[in-house]
Amino acid sequence: MTDEVAIQRWAVRIEYDGAGLVGWQRQSSGLSVQALLEDAASRLAGGAPVGSITAGRTDAGVHALAQVAHLDFPAGLKLTPHAVREGLSFHLKPHAVVVTKAAPVALEWNARFSATWRAYRYRILNRRARPALAAGHVWHVKSPLDAERMHEAASLLLGRHDFTSFRAAACQAKSPLRTLDHLAVRREGDEIVITAQARSFLHHQVRNMVGTLKLVGSGQWTPERVTQALEARDRSAAGPTAPAEGLYLSGVGYDPDPFSRQ
Amino acid sequence: MTDEVAIQRWAVRIEYDGAGLVGWQRQSSGLSVQALLEDAASRLAGGAPVGSITAGRTDAGVHALAQVAHLDFPAGLKLTPHAVREGLSFHLKPHAVVVTKAAPVALEWNARFSATWRAYRYRILNRRARPALAAGHVWHVKSPLDAERMHEAASLLLGRHDFTSFRAAACQAKSPLRTLDHLAVRREGDEIVITAQARSFLHHQVRNMVGTLKLVGSGQWTPERVTQALEARDRSAAGPTAPAEGLYLSGVGYDPDPFSRQ
Repeated sequence: MTDEVAIQRWAVRIEYDGAGLVGWQRQSSGLSVQALLEDAASRLAGGAPVGSITAGRTDAGVHALAQVAHLDFPAGLKLTPHAVREGLSFHLKPHAVVVTKAAPVALEWNARFSATWRAYRYRILNRRARPALAAGHVWHVKSPLDAERMHEAASLLLGRHDFTSFRAAACQAKSPLRTLDHLAVRREGDEIVITAQARSFLHHQVRNMVGTLKLVGSGQWTPERVTQALEARDRSAAGPTAPAEGLYLSGVGYDPDPFSRQ
Repeated sequence: MTDEVAIQRWAVRIEYDGAGLVGWQRQSSGLSVQALLEDAASRLAGGAPVGSITAGRTDAGVHALAQVAHLDFPAGLKLTPHAVREGLSFHLKPHAVVVTKAAPVALEWNARFSATWRAYRYRILNRRARPALAAGHVWHVKSPLDAERMHEAASLLLGRHDFTSFRAAACQAKSPLRTLDHLAVRREGDEIVITAQARSFLHHQVRNMVGTLKLVGSGQWTPERVTQALEARDRSAAGPTAPAEGLYLSGVGYDPDPFSRQ
């Protein structure tokens, strides 16, 4: 009989400012959200190691409004949603990472594999002056962008496609097929806001779509060329990768929602 | 005949993150927006001193989305709106202060005295978790606030009143009479957003009104008590001063608008 450690699984919703972080995944090169969260959880567990799995492995510099992860605490620990949320947020200080929700889930529940959709938001500050209040939180594009043409081009990417042209070389997904359920572009004053939703995304897919739509917005590309780029199934046929600092993981969906009771 | 220096006056619109700044006014205790702007202008003027006057002398930590000031450059200097805007923003680096508009104005035009209205915005993050993405940019209030009751109370302050109860002891204005043209409270997700507009405000007036409305939002005060506080003409009758970090100078109006041609 092996010495199995009994665990209790908790789902947490996380907000963070990605500036200065190396992204979700634990790395020797700098502070990761995973390391900060697992270290905070371990302190809450009196030093016991606590592992985590997330719904979205964000890149360095990417922000999160509502990322979801699960944490496996020792079964014996007495925990409440309030204690997990407040305790983790306390131990995450002084970092710009905070737990906004916590809920107990079944051991079969998995933050990554139970997710039914992911949503992202991308902010472009489209004016001549560099950002002051939004520094580090937007992609600064000086030349005027036509949000309506970008929106028109975005609609050509909706549906089930082979997104090889918008996929990072390092992408580990088995299939380049994805179903894009939502991709919209709108102007809000000086900003262009792009929202995207799908069951899952390929590595860099949102940033590569944004970098491509920007070419349409600036008039360098026609919307139709986006369809050609998609059909080429070749990364070099699409536009460049938009910077990480404008990207926000804005939500992850589950059915049922583990946080619905709070 | 005195040796008068011939000048040319320019209006500029400024955005800044007030975190780490001592506010508008030049002080020995730290970095001020005025010193940063005047130093940048002096560099643009090849070292000549450049004075400035602003429409709103913000306190330490207060932010600006669209503050307006005027700068008096030497008359001989060849300047264009593009050169002033880009030159000042360049010399303001690496500080989170940027010039978004610049326009030549007549010597009679005065950023402070020609202004016909000022507008402010105040952001309260109203949730249990501390701010991560909006750290330093909101007042964090954990207990639930009722935005509708706050809005109801806000409407009781509209119009021309003696605002002594909402005025800082250090206020230098001759009269405590002000006409509040707009004061509204709305909820936007986790945030309570308060907007205010008047020809001019007393020192700390917006922050003192917000600190008072928060007491109504949390249920400690009835809306009617705000009227009693106003009528008391006594600072101690109103609520505490809300923190600087949630306040934004959001606009200044002129008739005609010096920036309308851009």
